[in-house]
Amino acid sequence: MLNEQSSTIFVCSDSVGETADAVVRATLSQFDAEKVNVKRWSHIKSEDEIRNIMEEAARIGCFVVYTLVLPELREMIRQEAIRLKVFAVDIMGPVMEAFVHTFHFAPKETPGLLHQLDTTYFKRVEAIEYTVKCDDGQAQADWQKADIMLLGVSRTSKTPLSIFLAHKGYKVANYPIVPEVNPPQAMFELGNCIFIGLTMSPESLVRIRAERLKAMGLPPTAAYASLKRVTEELEFAQAIYRKLGCIVLDVTERAIEETAGTIVERISESRFMYEINT
Amino acid sequence: MLNEQSSTIFVCSDSVGETADAVVRATLSQFDAEKVNVKRWSHIKSEDEIRNIMEEAARIGCFVVYTLVLPELREMIRQEAIRLKVFAVDIMGPVMEAFVHTFHFAPKETPGLLHQLDTTYFKRVEAIEYTVKCDDGQAQADWQKADIMLLGVSRTSKTPLSIFLAHKGYKVANYPIVPEVNPPQAMFELGNCIFIGLTMSPESLVRIRAERLKAMGLPPTAAYASLKRVTEELEFAQAIYRKLGCIVLDVTERAIEETAGTIVERISESRFMYEINT
Repeated sequence: MLNEQSSTIFVCSDSVGETADAVVRATLSQFDAEKVNVKRWSHIKSEDEIRNIMEEAARIGCFVVYTLVLPELREMIRQEAIRLKVFAVDIMGPVMEAFVHTFHFAPKETPGLLHQLDTTYFKRVEAIEYTVKCDDGQAQADWQKADIMLLGVSRTSKTPLSIFLAHKGYKVANYPIVPEVNPPQAMFELGNCIFIGLTMSPESLVRIRAERLKAMGLPPTAAYASLKRVTEELEFAQAIYRKLGCIVLDVTERAIEETAGTIVERISESRFMYEINT
Repeated sequence: MLNEQSSTIFVCSDSVGETADAVVRATLSQFDAEKVNVKRWSHIKSEDEIRNIMEEAARIGCFVVYTLVLPELREMIRQEAIRLKVFAVDIMGPVMEAFVHTFHFAPKETPGLLHQLDTTYFKRVEAIEYTVKCDDGQAQADWQKADIMLLGVSRTSKTPLSIFLAHKGYKVANYPIVPEVNPPQAMFELGNCIFIGLTMSPESLVRIRAERLKAMGLPPTAAYASLKRVTEELEFAQAIYRKLGCIVLDVTERAIEETAGTIVERISESRFMYEINT
């Protein structure tokens, strides 16, 4: 049974529902809505299913966000929304309309095409596998295949940033900078990748490392989290970044998505435009 | 300079633009649009910026998809769209309206809240770090902390699936099943995680492994890609799944997003509803 005390949003899709879910999540961040439940209805195939879902929505007083590419299902949900006085928001419809109107293409009307097993898909899977393998300085023999080499001292978010970029199809290797240890010669022989050096304000890094020590049950007073040691590490890193010609990015108080956005922009700057599906 | 020969879509945001980009990507999959360029304009702050972007859009004949949470910027883009006859699609606005109308909350109108460094954010980062560390049977000492243990023979998409689930905040360990090798005792002592066993049609797996061998420059006739060996491996895996009480999922011809969706559904079934931000 649905909990009728809390606010609920239905996400409906004739595919997985990831896209509508992403928009709902972005919207929720704009409200102080601590107890909003999101119920996802995936792979909707029939008008009957839609009727049942919309009646349930009306009953519990929720609204519906949907991505349906089959015109008959879209029409059904629109009609039911009016009949039952339930708000129903079409996420892809308006963009599809803009597309048809601006470029005069006809849509395919096949659910699930976003997740089809095509070249782009396999390229992304390969990039993720590569990136996991080349995390934290591992698998040096494969570095030559990297699109991006990410460098940074401990706790500058190398791993999640690498993974986020891998989801966009980039093969990312990352390497942890440790004071007094120069990167291996192989690092200086990479020709085809972009070098990104991560930096952070020493104060922030001290805070993050102290938290880390606490989480590990260690005293936060260890040298690892001291301002002196952190400052030295960051200076040592800067020297390596200069040697490698890294693009240096300050990640202080920046979310992974923000930094990844900047990196993708830098990569595409030379081309100015990046193409979807490359 | 923009290439005026090809179709272009502008993605505009007062934050990163990930959400609008996701909707555009989903929409593009519905068209045979090989050469559509997507240009992203992030961190838009002023009405002047919007005027310039919209004039550029009118000049090259493209349309605009936007997520703007500041009302004055939303109003500006609406007006400019009418003035310049450019299609402009508001992605979050209609969902925000439905939210306000249905639940009577007021939005915060602060850009970038989706990417703020809050508890959810750090939980996700931790999950990704955990999952990378526990890939491919590694870091057994940490298995006790797993939310999900994924098992499968070679090439059943364990790594990308684990990473995709980690992005949703789940700590995932994955373990490669190798014939005649029983998982370590530690596997049978895990109490708090969900066991997922991946399987696939032997024919598909043979095809995928043969491709893999080809990509590695090896003859596709190796036992690794033979129907006999693959069938044996899958049967051995099934026996282990039974011992562990795994939920068994057939991933033949299924995209990672599809399988991940099924897993999340299974996890939330006991609760029926899952909460955003948990």
